[in-house]
Amino acid sequence: MKTINTPLTPPTMSKTTIAIIAAVSAATGAGVTAAMYSTRSEKKIQAAKSSTSISATSTTSLPAPVPASLPIAGKDIIPPVDPAGLFQYGFPGPIADLATRNALVSSFDRRLRNPSWVAEHITPESLATSNGDRKNSAFLEDPSVPEKFRGKLKDYFRSGYDRGHQVPAADAKWSQEAMNDTFYLTNMCPQVGEGFNRDYWAHFEDFCRRLTQKYPSVRIVTGPLYLPKRDTADGKWRVSYEVIGNPPNIAVPTHFYKVIFAEDGTTTGQVALGAFVLPNAHIPNEKPITDFEVPVEAVERASGLEFASKLPVGRRKRLCADTVCALVIKEYADRQKAFGKEAAQKAVAAPTRTSPRNSSA
Amino acid sequence: MKTINTPLTPPTMSKTTIAIIAAVSAATGAGVTAAMYSTRSEKKIQAAKSSTSISATSTTSLPAPVPASLPIAGKDIIPPVDPAGLFQYGFPGPIADLATRNALVSSFDRRLRNPSWVAEHITPESLATSNGDRKNSAFLEDPSVPEKFRGKLKDYFRSGYDRGHQVPAADAKWSQEAMNDTFYLTNMCPQVGEGFNRDYWAHFEDFCRRLTQKYPSVRIVTGPLYLPKRDTADGKWRVSYEVIGNPPNIAVPTHFYKVIFAEDGTTTGQVALGAFVLPNAHIPNEKPITDFEVPVEAVERASGLEFASKLPVGRRKRLCADTVCALVIKEYADRQKAFGKEAAQKAVAAPTRTSPRNSSA
Repeated sequence: MKTINTPLTPPTMSKTTIAIIAAVSAATGAGVTAAMYSTRSEKKIQAAKSSTSISATSTTSLPAPVPASLPIAGKDIIPPVDPAGLFQYGFPGPIADLATRNALVSSFDRRLRNPSWVAEHITPESLATSNGDRKNSAFLEDPSVPEKFRGKLKDYFRSGYDRGHQVPAADAKWSQEAMNDTFYLTNMCPQVGEGFNRDYWAHFEDFCRRLTQKYPSVRIVTGPLYLPKRDTADGKWRVSYEVIGNPPNIAVPTHFYKVIFAEDGTTTGQVALGAFVLPNAHIPNEKPITDFEVPVEAVERASGLEFASKLPVGRRKRLCADTVCALVIKEYADRQKAFGKEAAQKAVAAPTRTSPRNSSA
Repeated sequence: MKTINTPLTPPTMSKTTIAIIAAVSAATGAGVTAAMYSTRSEKKIQAAKSSTSISATSTTSLPAPVPASLPIAGKDIIPPVDPAGLFQYGFPGPIADLATRNALVSSFDRRLRNPSWVAEHITPESLATSNGDRKNSAFLEDPSVPEKFRGKLKDYFRSGYDRGHQVPAADAKWSQEAMNDTFYLTNMCPQVGEGFNRDYWAHFEDFCRRLTQKYPSVRIVTGPLYLPKRDTADGKWRVSYEVIGNPPNIAVPTHFYKVIFAEDGTTTGQVALGAFVLPNAHIPNEKPITDFEVPVEAVERASGLEFASKLPVGRRKRLCADTVCALVIKEYADRQKAFGKEAAQKAVAAPTRTSPRNSSA
């Protein structure tokens, strides 16, 4: 078997990452970016289709046998088969397990054993109160996902990756239960710890919270991506990602996105919209967050999701034109004291066997 | 950027493939295989969850601000936020585009731009009549998928891959319209042509048709998989697959599955159940198809789907114990005459520019 060497994307790749994202949406091109934030002629926005309805035909009787001589090439031939009869054995899916909790709503991808997206809502008031402490939370498998498709705590143990919150624990401190909501594995993906989950990504989460200093209501959708890279040798594009667990169970995303809706306190006013895609890799703190800004459409094409189909273009403004998009790099010591996250996460990711409370399976 | 060299899995990997599949389902182990086909104590079979319902809370009003002094750590705190309010901008998804046609039912994966599964139904009678000819069919993009997520004909052009039918055209000859149904790109995945789509896979499709000599009704679900391989250098498991198109758009699966339900003509009788996973690669004709047989659960864990949740274990028998699972390798010349597939497919896959009808975009 050939050796596969797929190093994590270093942050110098951020321009390349943007290029990848741009390539993914190249069919619409720069026109989309320009048009998105200005008035334009009505674009056909399709309402979300509910296309998972089961169109069961006869589930209790088999079709009558067709006589040997059919009308020749007629358009009105009664089909001699009923493919939808498969559903008598159960509809194959895919099922996206939706968990609606006080602190978040998550949608789970059974094949990748990761969330597809997790949505949260923060306000100045919700962040002002500290009734929750992560020391009192435990990482939990999500019982609402069937066991055969569930991400397991043991998948992360000694994997080299952090259990990376999508909706941050620190965004749900208004009650201990809310904070606990964020500790289900359906709110986690394997994330590089040092330089990302405990550093740059954490600074980015802090930026999101600080938006509530300007906006009375902020909604954030966070999730993983699995993006292709171009092989310089043969020019082909490939997706390559690790799968952790034994047996291999949980996919390690190549990137993470946040789509941010910064609201003005009304349901009809302007929404400052921003989308960012970061590589799941060490990122130096000095890298501007705007290097990772992308059109929302790029995240949609990459993820197969749609984030703002019901937000008319006329109500949108670009977040980073409406406010300063920049990270604040908090002092290492302050962060360590504040969260106690580092030690807990290190115990999960490190190859030596230790057992602080938060890493227990 | 590092070079990524990911050769297609050679067929000598079939045992490894089985090992991968087995590893994926190792948590249930050999016990599943043994138990599946015998009477056993009631396994909790979960009915398909419809978990894509939108639990919209308030979509027209924002939550009231919470007073500065909350009850301390109370369990009955009214949440100060409503994460589900995101859905006022549209539900993110994922949407699985379901197409219900006379010849097939398909479910489309927007992120990978491939079907997740395609279901068909064949009987001795449906196969007996030839009213359809693939010379009269054209490969078509599926208009029921939103344009931004659609697989495009141009993605395949000069990709090096065939447009590989999931439900075969030759299974839908009872009318021209039925055959045309099979030519939508929502019934296609990029497939290795020589040695696979035009050879071994085609023999396997013929095996499926020949099951109707013994069973009056046969249902087949076909689809792609993206399976991890183990890196011998560092022991890690990785998924790696090409993405074709410019910009890269359609994922090239690493494997394909078929789950076969061979029925006895009743809705309460025994169903001969078989599942197979083949690598998307050249496979020598002499390889026994039973080398690729796997438990249905293995395909489920790998795909995130469920195929027989409503088929009680007591009604199941193993297909390859009930009939001989073996391919018949038809003469090359006979096949060429019969289908005219070779030339049409070659024109799509080859690097030289030609334009026979079937490859026109």
